[in-house]
Amino acid sequence: MSDDWYTERLLGMAGYSLPVRERLHDEQSAFQRIEVFDSAHHGRVLALDGAFMLTERDEFTYHELLAHPALWTLAKAERAFLVGGGDGGTVGELLRRPGLEITVAEIDERVVRVSQEFFPELAKSLDDPRVTLSFADGVAALKDAAGSGLDLVVVDGTDPVGPAAGLIESEFYATVAGALAPEGVFVAQTQSPFYHPQEIAKIYRGLSEAFANVRMYWGVCPSYLGAFWTFAYASQERDPLRDLAPPAELETRYWTPEVHRAAFVLPPFVQQCLPEGHPQRTHV
Amino acid sequence: MSDDWYTERLLGMAGYSLPVRERLHDEQSAFQRIEVFDSAHHGRVLALDGAFMLTERDEFTYHELLAHPALWTLAKAERAFLVGGGDGGTVGELLRRPGLEITVAEIDERVVRVSQEFFPELAKSLDDPRVTLSFADGVAALKDAAGSGLDLVVVDGTDPVGPAAGLIESEFYATVAGALAPEGVFVAQTQSPFYHPQEIAKIYRGLSEAFANVRMYWGVCPSYLGAFWTFAYASQERDPLRDLAPPAELETRYWTPEVHRAAFVLPPFVQQCLPEGHPQRTHV
Repeated sequence: MSDDWYTERLLGMAGYSLPVRERLHDEQSAFQRIEVFDSAHHGRVLALDGAFMLTERDEFTYHELLAHPALWTLAKAERAFLVGGGDGGTVGELLRRPGLEITVAEIDERVVRVSQEFFPELAKSLDDPRVTLSFADGVAALKDAAGSGLDLVVVDGTDPVGPAAGLIESEFYATVAGALAPEGVFVAQTQSPFYHPQEIAKIYRGLSEAFANVRMYWGVCPSYLGAFWTFAYASQERDPLRDLAPPAELETRYWTPEVHRAAFVLPPFVQQCLPEGHPQRTHV
Repeated sequence: MSDDWYTERLLGMAGYSLPVRERLHDEQSAFQRIEVFDSAHHGRVLALDGAFMLTERDEFTYHELLAHPALWTLAKAERAFLVGGGDGGTVGELLRRPGLEITVAEIDERVVRVSQEFFPELAKSLDDPRVTLSFADGVAALKDAAGSGLDLVVVDGTDPVGPAAGLIESEFYATVAGALAPEGVFVAQTQSPFYHPQEIAKIYRGLSEAFANVRMYWGVCPSYLGAFWTFAYASQERDPLRDLAPPAELETRYWTPEVHRAAFVLPPFVQQCLPEGHPQRTHV
């Protein structure tokens, strides 16, 4: 058994550890520390600033949950904009909607290069001809996209500290809304109710100022501390339940149309994190 | 920030840690090591043989998920039998069904005594006049209860090693079925698909030999490694969806009738753990 364990410790509240079979990469980029190691049960692991970003074993839960709910509720899906996601996992799922072209703004080129070296199966999606990759600040890039009528904006961000802190500000959500078409959809990961209830409250208040429809859905990401992971679906017109129209055949490991509907059902302790008056606060 | 962290390491696959504010108890009982400590964010924590059993912060997820699905689908709920559960958390939830009397067979008296000292809010349910507490092997006690027509049997067991190993054997499920009334229901926690897929397959094969209806449901228990936690609902006649009849007012933090229905929806990677031919294997 390994004596070398890699541990993420979250604000002194809890820790998650994976055993290290081999440390493969460790660098300090201009934005963050990037580490890759091989673990016994979870395969290869990517950590940014000491927090697990993905493990080969369970990345599908997060990437499917982030991509599919929006993907199959869009009326028109021609142009998507992804903030972050330099490992390619989310792009891989988004590419499953035929005809969708994706602009990726990953602030840290090194995340992409490290992913291409150590996670080629995920990162290969970034080479797809339907993908335009830029190493840019997603917030600034979305400001430049004001009025461009995007169909989909996805934030595949780290915890909202450091380079990702701006991604939970009200101003950012207004920027996103300004870049989307009226029938467009915005999705983002919105942390865990066990460890980030204040951030969740802030995020959903901000979203509700910019979007007519704001819905939380959730799933399990076992390598993220808290594991019960929430996501926001925000739009002016589209409804994530009414407008679900998935293809008849779609091979997935976590998301299905039935899982989709179940994912919008919130336990009361999660509803409690939402602002007063939110339509999903039904049991508190 | 604490320098002392308590870590559960699961079979060399992953670890979960909580910071220790104060170590309160540590003993080796006749069955297992019993530890209690106070943590920063999770309140008091009970660990058995190095594995987290409960934390004050999130015990409600596990205890509500274990108790309520059976509780509100029973036609008649007069006599329940609980194997394990010496901390009192499950009993507290079961007592919410009016009129239900509960026999508890906890093999390790020390778990009860330690819980009474350090988790009095949970353990007080064991003093309820509707509860009969015995320090006995639940498997043997259920054999003695053959033909007694119980309405409900619940296994609130630890990981199926050590004292709890017998609780996932086919023979045990036949014993449970023999002690239940035809309209009775059996529920048990059945581990995590991320770390125990073989145990899950074995459990559901065994259950299907003893029960006409075997259904898996799931929820999140963040302090159990894997976090995505599964439960079995097994019966000869009762159906967990068709027969759900909860009271109009029920204050809970995790379980609601809507969460109940959603909890029986399984992602494909979970369906894959179930035996061939199981009715919930619909996407694999």
